[in-house]
Amino acid sequence: MGYPETAEGFMINSIKEWSKFTKQEFKLKPFEDRDIDIAIDACGVCASDVHTITGGWSEDIPLPLCVGHEVVGKAVKVGKDVTTIKVGDRVGVGAQIKADLTCDNCKADQENYCPNSVDTYGAPYEDGTIAQGGYASHIRAHEYFTFKIPDNIPTPLAAPMLCAGLTVYSPLVRLGCGPGKKVGIVGIGGLGHFAVLWAAALGAEVYAISHSPSKKDDALKLGAKHFVNTKEKDWHKPLAFTLDFIVNTADATDKFNLADYFSTLKVNGTFHMVGFPDNNLPSINAQVFAPNGCYMGASHIGNRPEMLAMFELASKQEIKSWVQEIDISEEGCKEAVERVHNNDNVRYRFTLVNYDKQFGKRS
Amino acid sequence: MGYPETAEGFMINSIKEWSKFTKQEFKLKPFEDRDIDIAIDACGVCASDVHTITGGWSEDIPLPLCVGHEVVGKAVKVGKDVTTIKVGDRVGVGAQIKADLTCDNCKADQENYCPNSVDTYGAPYEDGTIAQGGYASHIRAHEYFTFKIPDNIPTPLAAPMLCAGLTVYSPLVRLGCGPGKKVGIVGIGGLGHFAVLWAAALGAEVYAISHSPSKKDDALKLGAKHFVNTKEKDWHKPLAFTLDFIVNTADATDKFNLADYFSTLKVNGTFHMVGFPDNNLPSINAQVFAPNGCYMGASHIGNRPEMLAMFELASKQEIKSWVQEIDISEEGCKEAVERVHNNDNVRYRFTLVNYDKQFGKRS
Repeated sequence: MGYPETAEGFMINSIKEWSKFTKQEFKLKPFEDRDIDIAIDACGVCASDVHTITGGWSEDIPLPLCVGHEVVGKAVKVGKDVTTIKVGDRVGVGAQIKADLTCDNCKADQENYCPNSVDTYGAPYEDGTIAQGGYASHIRAHEYFTFKIPDNIPTPLAAPMLCAGLTVYSPLVRLGCGPGKKVGIVGIGGLGHFAVLWAAALGAEVYAISHSPSKKDDALKLGAKHFVNTKEKDWHKPLAFTLDFIVNTADATDKFNLADYFSTLKVNGTFHMVGFPDNNLPSINAQVFAPNGCYMGASHIGNRPEMLAMFELASKQEIKSWVQEIDISEEGCKEAVERVHNNDNVRYRFTLVNYDKQFGKRS
Repeated sequence: MGYPETAEGFMINSIKEWSKFTKQEFKLKPFEDRDIDIAIDACGVCASDVHTITGGWSEDIPLPLCVGHEVVGKAVKVGKDVTTIKVGDRVGVGAQIKADLTCDNCKADQENYCPNSVDTYGAPYEDGTIAQGGYASHIRAHEYFTFKIPDNIPTPLAAPMLCAGLTVYSPLVRLGCGPGKKVGIVGIGGLGHFAVLWAAALGAEVYAISHSPSKKDDALKLGAKHFVNTKEKDWHKPLAFTLDFIVNTADATDKFNLADYFSTLKVNGTFHMVGFPDNNLPSINAQVFAPNGCYMGASHIGNRPEMLAMFELASKQEIKSWVQEIDISEEGCKEAVERVHNNDNVRYRFTLVNYDKQFGKRS
């Protein structure tokens, strides 16, 4: 077989050997009229990939599995009903690859909450094919979830915007990020570095909040006006009733004293989570929200209009992701996921590149 | 001594004997220029009173203590700087009796979140006097927290609006209750019956959500359009993505499967709590908010403009609290708090009345 029936990718075969990738062939879903085939040139490495392959979020994952949902490549085939992309375009795919596009949520531009959504990897299509991700030669994506990348954003820098970037851009804009707003960004990592970049670009006064004082210089370079070290005793007290909202990108929220974070919010402010720990949140009582009438919540990626707006902002303001490139290979995938897992000096996102060396020139 | 230096009230002396009330004298705070003395004629019995005297929220309460923060009576003395109330006016006091009125929160009409707020009972004034509540002959209140009661609202019906009514009115209006909105009210009790009354009066489509099917008729009479029985299996499934927000008035949230409740919310909807269990909330993970990007939070009473708007709404639409009257006395207070504690057929609020019999005619 081979493309266009199959693609090949670096897959794991067991959550026990979650960093052991082997190059394997997998079946692509049947090609439909709004589908686009992409020859992949780069893929960001997301913490979700690591939570998935380690079984941290669920031990019930389909195997073998090819992860990766920050995919950039070239459109090599487009279905007859595709209107927004043509063969040869440089395009990207994020963490969602399909939705029914007919339900109330989809019609309200909430397709990221469509009950019939298909994740970019590990989820079954209607015919039973399992969607496979971007550590691979090709991906077959629905047009609605395929985005033309602006010319002035280099491929390795565009890749992590497709999940990490959108995941923080969406709550920032929905919570009203802009001039006059004081916005806390908790956790300066893959997600957090984008949150600081976007929030500053949108005109807010950014408070970077981290337990790693070594990240202060980076946070300020990214656009934060303030750096708050949560290792300091009573760090939250000077911030009482200060922040309009917080976007919490840490996935260690299970170890937080949430009351301290909540206390930094203005009345009716919001503590918004986009990093999901493997463990439950700390036990809290209802009263913890009462001193300032605050809210806690979370979100799941973002919608198509937000993706387009994010790329437009990045393009116009020439915002650069902070990316380290790793050549894709069995060793490269292993190094990337292990270093993300161990939080080993990832500043701030890995992009797998040099796909032609592994998969040949595919267009 | 005696009034105006002291008042007398039905007080408890131990959280172990939390329903043993004895009539005792207590000191009033020093009279200041914006203070108003009220000869009390009625006081609602709030679940907060019971959580407080049983030590459920904290075992560290000042004793002896006179509870009650739904106070209605007659102004018998007004300070020289008081402009909104005159002697003889029928007035009410809710759960807050003072704030600094100078901080950023107060200046933003968020005085219910003032860090220097004084609760109506059990809180120390600056001079060390402990504020005592409305199961008493008199209360001395700051003008800003004293409200003229509209003439067409009878005293026993006005009393519970001052805490229970406001506590649900405030989040309803802040969350945008009005025509076109679908609003869930969880728990049809003291707070919940007001939430249904107000939400319907504000024009929303109300879903009463309760584990007591026996309350269905009442819920519909109060103004709910739908009654949802959470004892039924999969009760939440037909409501997926339906409600704009929920005001949860139950104080048994610690026993809820929160994911079921959250699933009934529209994308980015809000699960708002005003009932505070003695126990912590159920353990949850951050992902529980992700399927619809929802939020959970709480609030503390409401502000002065909201109190005035609530009374105006109640007056214009002639909204009647559902109240059972109990004569104030050692036995009356005991019966009231025990029945609230045991959830013994309270439909839906007790108001202590006939104060003259215990305290004489005081004006």
